[in-house]
Amino acid sequence: MRTRPLKVALLGCGVVGSEVARIMTTHADDLTARIGAPVELAGVAVRRPSKVREGIDPALVTTDATALVKRGDIDVVVEVIGGIEPARALITTAFEHGASVVSANKALIAQDGAALHAAAEQHGRDLYYEAAVAGAIPLIRPLRESLAGDKVNRVLGIVNGTTNFILDKMDSTGAGYQEALDEATALGYAEADPTADVEGFDAAAKAAILAGIAFHTRVRLDDVYREGMAEVTAADFASAKRMGCTIKLLAICERAADGGSVTARVHPAMIPLSHPLASVREAYNAVFVEAEAAGQLMFYGPGAGGAPTASAVLGDLVAVCRNKLGEATGPGDSAYTQLPVSPMGEVVTRYHISLDVADKPGVLAQVATVFAEHGVSIDTVRQTGKDGEASLVVVTHRAPDAALSGTVEALRRLDTVRGVASIMRVEGE
Amino acid sequence: MRTRPLKVALLGCGVVGSEVARIMTTHADDLTARIGAPVELAGVAVRRPSKVREGIDPALVTTDATALVKRGDIDVVVEVIGGIEPARALITTAFEHGASVVSANKALIAQDGAALHAAAEQHGRDLYYEAAVAGAIPLIRPLRESLAGDKVNRVLGIVNGTTNFILDKMDSTGAGYQEALDEATALGYAEADPTADVEGFDAAAKAAILAGIAFHTRVRLDDVYREGMAEVTAADFASAKRMGCTIKLLAICERAADGGSVTARVHPAMIPLSHPLASVREAYNAVFVEAEAAGQLMFYGPGAGGAPTASAVLGDLVAVCRNKLGEATGPGDSAYTQLPVSPMGEVVTRYHISLDVADKPGVLAQVATVFAEHGVSIDTVRQTGKDGEASLVVVTHRAPDAALSGTVEALRRLDTVRGVASIMRVEGE
Repeated sequence: MRTRPLKVALLGCGVVGSEVARIMTTHADDLTARIGAPVELAGVAVRRPSKVREGIDPALVTTDATALVKRGDIDVVVEVIGGIEPARALITTAFEHGASVVSANKALIAQDGAALHAAAEQHGRDLYYEAAVAGAIPLIRPLRESLAGDKVNRVLGIVNGTTNFILDKMDSTGAGYQEALDEATALGYAEADPTADVEGFDAAAKAAILAGIAFHTRVRLDDVYREGMAEVTAADFASAKRMGCTIKLLAICERAADGGSVTARVHPAMIPLSHPLASVREAYNAVFVEAEAAGQLMFYGPGAGGAPTASAVLGDLVAVCRNKLGEATGPGDSAYTQLPVSPMGEVVTRYHISLDVADKPGVLAQVATVFAEHGVSIDTVRQTGKDGEASLVVVTHRAPDAALSGTVEALRRLDTVRGVASIMRVEGE
Repeated sequence: MRTRPLKVALLGCGVVGSEVARIMTTHADDLTARIGAPVELAGVAVRRPSKVREGIDPALVTTDATALVKRGDIDVVVEVIGGIEPARALITTAFEHGASVVSANKALIAQDGAALHAAAEQHGRDLYYEAAVAGAIPLIRPLRESLAGDKVNRVLGIVNGTTNFILDKMDSTGAGYQEALDEATALGYAEADPTADVEGFDAAAKAAILAGIAFHTRVRLDDVYREGMAEVTAADFASAKRMGCTIKLLAICERAADGGSVTARVHPAMIPLSHPLASVREAYNAVFVEAEAAGQLMFYGPGAGGAPTASAVLGDLVAVCRNKLGEATGPGDSAYTQLPVSPMGEVVTRYHISLDVADKPGVLAQVATVFAEHGVSIDTVRQTGKDGEASLVVVTHRAPDAALSGTVEALRRLDTVRGVASIMRVEGE
């Protein structure tokens, strides 16, 4: 066994970084045995050097991250800063100066994964980022390596713990969105500004990364259709229950039936209670993968948090260190198919639509005609009337999203339709 | 990209082998892109050469497996024969003649994994066997690589589809064991001789493999405590339901609380309906992994079948081929901890015990005294009497298995205890 240690530079020492440093210290012997050489924390770049960081030698701490990655003796850079810059520049500089990179940065990988992979390959380095999607859950490696001999047709997942916590609360307690969000904030599951989570930006970044890896193609962040979950109401959950469903914010990546294109999208959707994703509680994540030969797989676990994310980072660190020792690199970018990403309108799905309608004869016939005109077939209709108000709940068969949204637009223009109370896609059947 | 193809020898062309060959042909372009070089089926060793094998060039078929692995130009041997010999000799010979090996052979890996890993290492080859445990479910690779920076404390899984199908049937229809087994046989889920499945031999082999990888130690097949599920009755399911539980045949690998030893066992057990494993239906497999930093993870999917197993084999094939091209090897044996494997008596668990007792006063006091004498604390007792018969159902708190089984032995000796109707461990809480 080699005794000269591999040197690791840690960029960022917040919730995840401090946990990475802690495990590197407390489990040093295990890491040495698993890698085949010791690993040494050679430097820690932070913004606030005066903050006391338990277990970290103050002599290792620096505010000059660029100088750290340029040192030339660093074998692996662990980037847990997040955001686009300076993370991007630091990673690129690390590649140029001899280091491989482990990153937990979903935003950066989703936006610039292709360029970063190209830079890694140019310099013969590794770029690993298991922690960027679904925290501790092994997902990138299974997709990239375990399923490397299979053809993935669909990835359907709960990849944001904050929104799952909120939706689970609404489902189990009947709480409204704001009440559930307040509880998530109080418990630390939601950030002070929850926009990135509740509007689906976080999940969309993960969907872009997953779709790219699953389908061996390039999926940009802009290619991902995105709808947040702030408009989901207690009434929607009541409707879902009536259908034997619950509501989840899903990231869905699909290969078209003809195989010639792919889609990626994030939106709230009803899924049957019998679907394995329906029972994913609290802030847990779970991702369902359908592959041609493997069939249906599911990966479940904590999607965030310091220790779980550090677990994923350290798994990558061991792999990258092993590669370094073997003078090899792991599987890199694999976007060789260049499949086009189709717009949301071409996604084939089902709608659950609640309409407030005039309580008079002939309304259902009018509504049904609109569906027929758009080529959308109706699965079930439920009419309820009370206090002079009436409502219609329509669940469609599968149709292109463009036809479904065209139907809804036309419904809004009907005199007898007073309002569209909610529209929700139905998935996982 | 290299154009000289990597040569693959396929040993065995049954349900799994023929699927491996089929995918290698139909997805050749994808495999080439993912590996970085073409792969070519260079020979197929079979027992019955006259059988027509669709899609396989008859010129590749041979009955001389030894000559095939000795050819010297084979890069990877895929062993899907199963059983100990000739698989073991062929794999060893393959290593000696330049090939890495992908195997789906749980029995062989469980029995001789250490020696085979040593042979692989000695010759600088890879030995991969994702397909040996839980079919298509990525499990070996996540444990070995994704969790390489973490400390696994527990693996709890449904790793045999046949028995899960039978138990699920009994649970959902109230059928008895024999009736459910007959249905499993009729549907092809159980073999004509179901012993290996229902007696837990298959699951025990997988438990030995999983425990070894999870705890980085050596766990021999003989180290695994094993109880089959042929004695599980409809009455047990009724008892389980009353406790909010179901019954699964579980493979359980645990690190002792003090970290100084490990245990591995296979037996039927009650688990709460709220546990993710409780909802694993039909012949599906699922494995729950608890790691120090990652927390609770679950991996779910089809645990057997030609195509799912082939998916796992091909994932390994891609990895091994990539390693060959990079002149590297993947992670090998990692049994560096040499943790002892404790006997079943030291496992700490809970018992659910049904006793047929005399219907007279003082019985409960007698029974309770026996538990107390063995240091086993009682959680709940339920007494029922009808038609002069009485029964006592006792659920214990956690205690060493030796104390629990000692309690049961002593109970059998009580005059007032007419019989021990069933004993079942309670797990997953």
